[in-house]
Amino acid sequence: MSDHDFKSPSVEAFLERLGSDAPTPGGGTAAAVTGAMGAALVAMLANLTIGRKKYADHEELMTAIAEEAEIERSRLLELAADDAAAYEAVGAAFKMPKDSDEEKAARTQAIQSALKGACDVPLAVMERCLEVIGLAKTSVQHGNKNAISDGAAGAEFARSALRVAGYNVKINLAMIKDEEYAKQARTRMDEMEYMGANAATWIDSRVNEAWSS
Amino acid sequence: MSDHDFKSPSVEAFLERLGSDAPTPGGGTAAAVTGAMGAALVAMLANLTIGRKKYADHEELMTAIAEEAEIERSRLLELAADDAAAYEAVGAAFKMPKDSDEEKAARTQAIQSALKGACDVPLAVMERCLEVIGLAKTSVQHGNKNAISDGAAGAEFARSALRVAGYNVKINLAMIKDEEYAKQARTRMDEMEYMGANAATWIDSRVNEAWSS
Repeated sequence: MSDHDFKSPSVEAFLERLGSDAPTPGGGTAAAVTGAMGAALVAMLANLTIGRKKYADHEELMTAIAEEAEIERSRLLELAADDAAAYEAVGAAFKMPKDSDEEKAARTQAIQSALKGACDVPLAVMERCLEVIGLAKTSVQHGNKNAISDGAAGAEFARSALRVAGYNVKINLAMIKDEEYAKQARTRMDEMEYMGANAATWIDSRVNEAWSS
Repeated sequence: MSDHDFKSPSVEAFLERLGSDAPTPGGGTAAAVTGAMGAALVAMLANLTIGRKKYADHEELMTAIAEEAEIERSRLLELAADDAAAYEAVGAAFKMPKDSDEEKAARTQAIQSALKGACDVPLAVMERCLEVIGLAKTSVQHGNKNAISDGAAGAEFARSALRVAGYNVKINLAMIKDEEYAKQARTRMDEMEYMGANAATWIDSRVNEAWSS
């Protein structure tokens, strides 16, 4: 749907739409875009390392990181659109008729199913962001020292996106009645937040070390 | 300069350029754009509050917040361009001739002056982001409960942008010889990081409280 295309509008138009009272795009879409920004910065550090004699030992690794980061950037931009679609599906389900018992049951089922979709998308955003943070870690470790702040910035934005995507998982989980699903989703979310925080702390201390040496 | 126009390119084109090995845009520009994204999300929460009977008491406040946040969004997009220009000015100064003593002196002076510019821009980004976090705080406190996650997301992104802008201040400060300037810049930076972290923690606990009640 062209309505969920957040790639083609200009940066300014996207931000204007984000700021409006339209229900989408909202924080979830912004998280996916911020994650994509993080992936781009990791690719930048890798691309600024490739081809430099001093880092020739890590040429292959950095080429792989640049490719992976670019794939994550594209995936996250897809998820930006998926997030808006999933959010709107919840709204549409809530608007279903509820006059008869049959209608009520169908509506409840549609809401519950849409809520799972609205959890699955930010969970996928979190997963991609965690991947970006992992790539950032390796790129900061072995990449061009003069550009490691770009990799660290990439990790910071991916971490921020991971946290905001987590907000949306929490909000939707609170309304999901399937306890088994909710339990698994919560566990995954907690694990990812923990791993993301750990990696971010590592990158922070590594970068501060590099700057003070 | 059209080369520093990060408003008109599509989101996808901007991210592609960010990921390339071109020296700009880099983390500093990305920080300003992320701050603008934070401002847009604060405007979103305010706009989703305005006109709702339940929040009529805060109508004026929310209208002011929406306006302020939209101004910050524009300012931050301007700063995204300024950051790239300031970074390139440093590169240009380093490329100045250094054959004679006169040339060396002129080059050193140009570098030092450009480095101050490359500190001033991220410091201004930090200031705008701190403002956005303040607006987020008020909007989360008095805004539409159903949309406070958007305000919290806005604060999170502004906080993240503030930290990344801080990286660039640190990197450039390390090369600045004017100790008085460096001392003042460092103090402002530390204050803003502290205030940003405090406000973000407050928003986090407020949002978690709202979700668990």
